[in-house]
Parts: sequence; C-alpha cells; structure tokens
Amino acid sequence: MVTLPANLVWRATALEVLDQRRLPAAEHYLRCARWTDVVEAIAQLAVRGAPAIGIAAGYGAALAAIEGPAALDRARVELVRARPTAVEPGVTVPRVVAAASLGGPEAAVAEAVRIHQEDAARCEDIAQLGAQVLAGADWVLTHCHTGALATGGVGTALGAIRRAWEAGGLAGVYCCETRPLWQGARLTAWECGQLGLPHRLLADGAAGSLLAEGRVGAVCVGADRITVNGDVANKIGTLPLAIAAAHYEIPFYVFASMTTVDAGLVSGRQIPIEQRSADEVRLPHGLETTPVWNPAFDVTPGTLVSAIVTETGVHRRPYGFLPRP
Amino acid sequence: MVTLPANLVWRATALEVLDQRRLPAAEHYLRCARWTDVVEAIAQLAVRGAPAIGIAAGYGAALAAIEGPAALDRARVELVRARPTAVEPGVTVPRVVAAASLGGPEAAVAEAVRIHQEDAARCEDIAQLGAQVLAGADWVLTHCHTGALATGGVGTALGAIRRAWEAGGLAGVYCCETRPLWQGARLTAWECGQLGLPHRLLADGAAGSLLAEGRVGAVCVGADRITVNGDVANKIGTLPLAIAAAHYEIPFYVFASMTTVDAGLVSGRQIPIEQRSADEVRLPHGLETTPVWNPAFDVTPGTLVSAIVTETGVHRRPYGFLPRP
Repeated sequence: MVTLPANLVWRATALEVLDQRRLPAAEHYLRCARWTDVVEAIAQLAVRGAPAIGIAAGYGAALAAIEGPAALDRARVELVRARPTAVEPGVTVPRVVAAASLGGPEAAVAEAVRIHQEDAARCEDIAQLGAQVLAGADWVLTHCHTGALATGGVGTALGAIRRAWEAGGLAGVYCCETRPLWQGARLTAWECGQLGLPHRLLADGAAGSLLAEGRVGAVCVGADRITVNGDVANKIGTLPLAIAAAHYEIPFYVFASMTTVDAGLVSGRQIPIEQRSADEVRLPHGLETTPVWNPAFDVTPGTLVSAIVTETGVHRRPYGFLPRP
Repeated sequence: MVTLPANLVWRATALEVLDQRRLPAAEHYLRCARWTDVVEAIAQLAVRGAPAIGIAAGYGAALAAIEGPAALDRARVELVRARPTAVEPGVTVPRVVAAASLGGPEAAVAEAVRIHQEDAARCEDIAQLGAQVLAGADWVLTHCHTGALATGGVGTALGAIRRAWEAGGLAGVYCCETRPLWQGARLTAWECGQLGLPHRLLADGAAGSLLAEGRVGAVCVGADRITVNGDVANKIGTLPLAIAAAHYEIPFYVFASMTTVDAGLVSGRQIPIEQRSADEVRLPHGLETTPVWNPAFDVTPGTLVSAIVTETGVHRRPYGFLPRP
C-alpha cells in the first residue's frame, strides 16, 4: 500500500500545509498558526483543489475561533474570499462558525476535523463509483490535479483513475501539464509517480491530437463549482477538452463531491471567474510588460458532460440538481 | 515604418541566422559557414517557421554547392530531413541543387537568393489578401508564430494580422503562448511589441474561454504542410482551436504559401508527425524521468477550416488543390 504525504495536518492549535507550490522538488510544510496564515496559504496556492481549500478554510475558521469572536468575524469573510471560484469554503466556514457559536473553540475544531473526515469518505465513494464508470477505458486523459493533494482523501478524478487502475480496469493516464501553474506536471505526474500509476505528460495543446488519434477512452476532470444545470467551472483548459471530446464522441466525465454543487446558481454564467496575476504567464519567458489574459477557470456547459460522478451516484443529463428554494 | 531585425542574412559565403531560441532576451546571430551548420540551425530551431526553414535549407544547399559535389549529395538529403513535417525544404533544396548542376556554385547561390525574394513577395500577397479577409474582425486569436521571423517577408498569419491592423481593420491579437517551445510568448508577443500591434498573451488552454465569450472574431494560423484535401499540419495545439472555433461558429483561417501545399499527399493522415524530445516538456518543471508524449504538430481536417488564404487567393471547400499526377 503506497502512502502519499498528507496535504493537511491538524496539530491542536495549528494547521500544517504541504506547500504544493514547491512540489515536486521539496516536501515542505507551512505552519499556519493563525487564520490569516490559512488565508495566505489558500490565496497563494500553497493549498489548492476545491475540496482541500474547503477543508483548510474550515481549519482556518477553527483557528479564528480559538483567537476570539473579532477574529472569527473577519475570518468568515476573508477565508471565503481568498479563492472566489471554489464553492466549498462558503459551506465549510459557516459550519465551523456555527459550531463555535454553539460550543466554543473546542466545538469549532471538532467540526473542522469532521469536515476533513467527511471529505475523505466522500472521495472514496466517488473513486469507487468512478472506477466502475472508467473500467475498460484503457488509457484516460486528465487535466490539472485532482488527487489526494487536492482533497481530504484519495482525490476525485485522479482518485477514480487510481481505483480503476488498482482494480485492473485501466492501463494509465495522460496528464495535461496545465498552464500556467503546471498542476498536471508538478502534482499529477508526481502523484502518479509516487503511486506507480503509468502516466504520460503532455502539453495542453497536444490533447487535441490525443483525442483525434483515439488514444484515450475517456477524459476525466474534477470541478471547482457545479451549477444546478450541470455547468462545470474547472481549471482553465477544461472547456477545450470537453469540446474536443464531444467532437470525437469520447466520454467526458466530471468527478466531484456534491459539496461542489452550488444550489444557489442555476447556470455557469453566474459563476465568478477569478482573474489571476499576469506574472503567472509572463515569468517563464522573462517577460515583464507583455499584456496578459489569465483567467484561472473556465466553464464547461453541462451539455458537453457525459456524466457527473459524485458520492451520491452517476448523474447524467438532465442532472436534476436541486436549486436552493 | 517599423523595421524588425532580419532573420536570415546571406553574406556571400555564409548564412547568418537570428537565433530564435534566444529571443526575446537577446538578438544573437549564428554564423553558418557550412551546410551542416544550417542543418543544425534548422534541427535545433534556431531558425523555425516552415517558409524560413525552406529558405534556410536553400542557402544551406548553396553552401554545400560551394563546398563541392560530395557535400551537395549529403546536404540534399540531410537538409530535408532536419525537420520532417515542413514541406518547403523538399522544394527549395532540389531547386538549388538543379541550379548548381546547371551553373555551378554561383548559380546555386543566385537560386537561393531568388527563393528568399520569392517568399517575401508571396508573404506580401498573402498578407494583403488576408487583411481583406480579416477586416472588421476586431480582435483575433493566433497560435505559435507566423510573423516575419518565420518567413522571408512580412509573415503569413501574423503578416495578415499586421496588414489588417495597419489598414485600420483590426484592433489586436490574442497570442497563445504555445507550449512546449513558447513561440507565441517569445516570438509573436515580441514581434507584436516591436510593431506596436496591440496584443494579449494567454495560456493555450485559455483559448476555449476566449472563443466561448466571443472575444475574437477569427482564429488565424499558419501551416507547416497542407494536403490536397485541405488538411493542415501546424504547430501542436492548432487542432483544438479549430474544433472549438467550429463549435462556436467562429471563422478559422489558415494563411500559407502555395509552397506549403504538398501535392503528393491527398490526406493529412499521410503527413509524418515529428515527435520531439521529452525534455522540451520536462525542463520547466525540473522533471527528469517523467514519461512524456510530445508531438510537434497536429493535423486539422480541412472540414474545420473556413478558408485557406494563399498568394493565389482565398481558397474555400472543396479546396481543389491539384494532386501530383
């Protein structure tokens, strides 16, 4: 049994965060002793992946509860605002705040730990269901990183790929390197390497040929936010994969927790898309002034999605996710 | 009138090549005194862009003709083999070889110079025709680099974009950074900056959103090889742009010389696709052993192309390019 290093470790009065920016070169943990350290870790992508952000934000709220009511009042806003596209912090932070108001800091910590454990269980359910969906797909293609580092458990899309491979139903995974922040190259390829899961890294633009040549049986991605109609906000570069998969009639699967479904939004057009710093695109080239367009996410219409696999089942169109009344 | 530095300068018994690998940091010229230096410059991408490769290969053959018949015999093979996907060297090298056999080294050099001048004239024709096609497109999207550096003149797709902008028919150009070799970031953005042509750099995967949001009026690319049925081999990452453009009903234009049309191939399936070194993908991440899939080109079916603009006109389906009898 392979064990990956833990991404989030709770130490009574501090959260230790495996700094994903420094992988694969170094396994370095950031110690977050204050809730503002957690905001920083989320905003700067030391922790990333929608479920992991939600869990970290929950621990951040617990740290604020320990600090006191004034801190908690600020933290409940800033922890959610640190990455505006993910929906999870908007769920986990209020849970911890509610626990704190009922039972104080101790209850807040217990709630944050419970949120973490719940995500691990959900990941396992998604991965097991997903492994059945992917069985026989031979090689698959994934984008960004959706493994253990991005969640509280085995991961979402990469968890399903891992479980399918472990069950003998899958040969391996092509990983888009995922510009501008290289999550595929730095994290997915690293995690596959740690697991011994066969993988091939490719430039994002090469995915078109991969699909055209019939080299993959499915495209597998996670989600940062899903709206009631099945539209999926995910890492920039997901949408062109979905369009190409539809063009070549290759299944396009989304693996995500039901917590990713935003019952308050009926369509992807309502999802706020984070624009990130131009430097993320400029730096590898030594460019200093070139104007840049750098959205962090794109929105894939539910009509291009073959199925959304969550812990509650394999959802197909019409998705029937319930809007908030 | 803005003048860009020349990419290929003939100096009586040597070819000077602006080393595109070192742009935009440095404007450094490689001196190629022997034909083998030209093979090296082509294979290592110091000179790149199908028309520029053809011109450089022509000069390389002239250098071989100066060296003698044995050199020319080897050069005629190796100059063509240096980059297997481009069709031009297969035309320009035999022209120079034929000139050498009729008129000796002096005639070979004259033919190489003539090939260079012909390309400059063709580029201008393509750019002028293309400017009419693009007029009113507002912003456009391009991939890789197809400007002056890639040709013997103003460029192909970027030449058309430049002339359209100079004529007041275009606002600016979004440039895909073009992994793995960054031609868009290093060369297109640099060339646009030199010209004062408004531009925005983006990660390749972000093009999907750009098209989805209706931010561009057309997608404009060059071509490394075009088959008789209108299939287009071009830099890896072109195909997904064509699929997405078709999905959103945005025109997808190819700008290329008729010399790019390979009359010997009836379909893109016959085009040899160069697989390049894994290090091109690995290096930015410090990865040393990760398995990589790194095709240099993809093939866009002619059915996804709105028009192919060449020096002879604006060609639309059915293309009617004549196969070799």
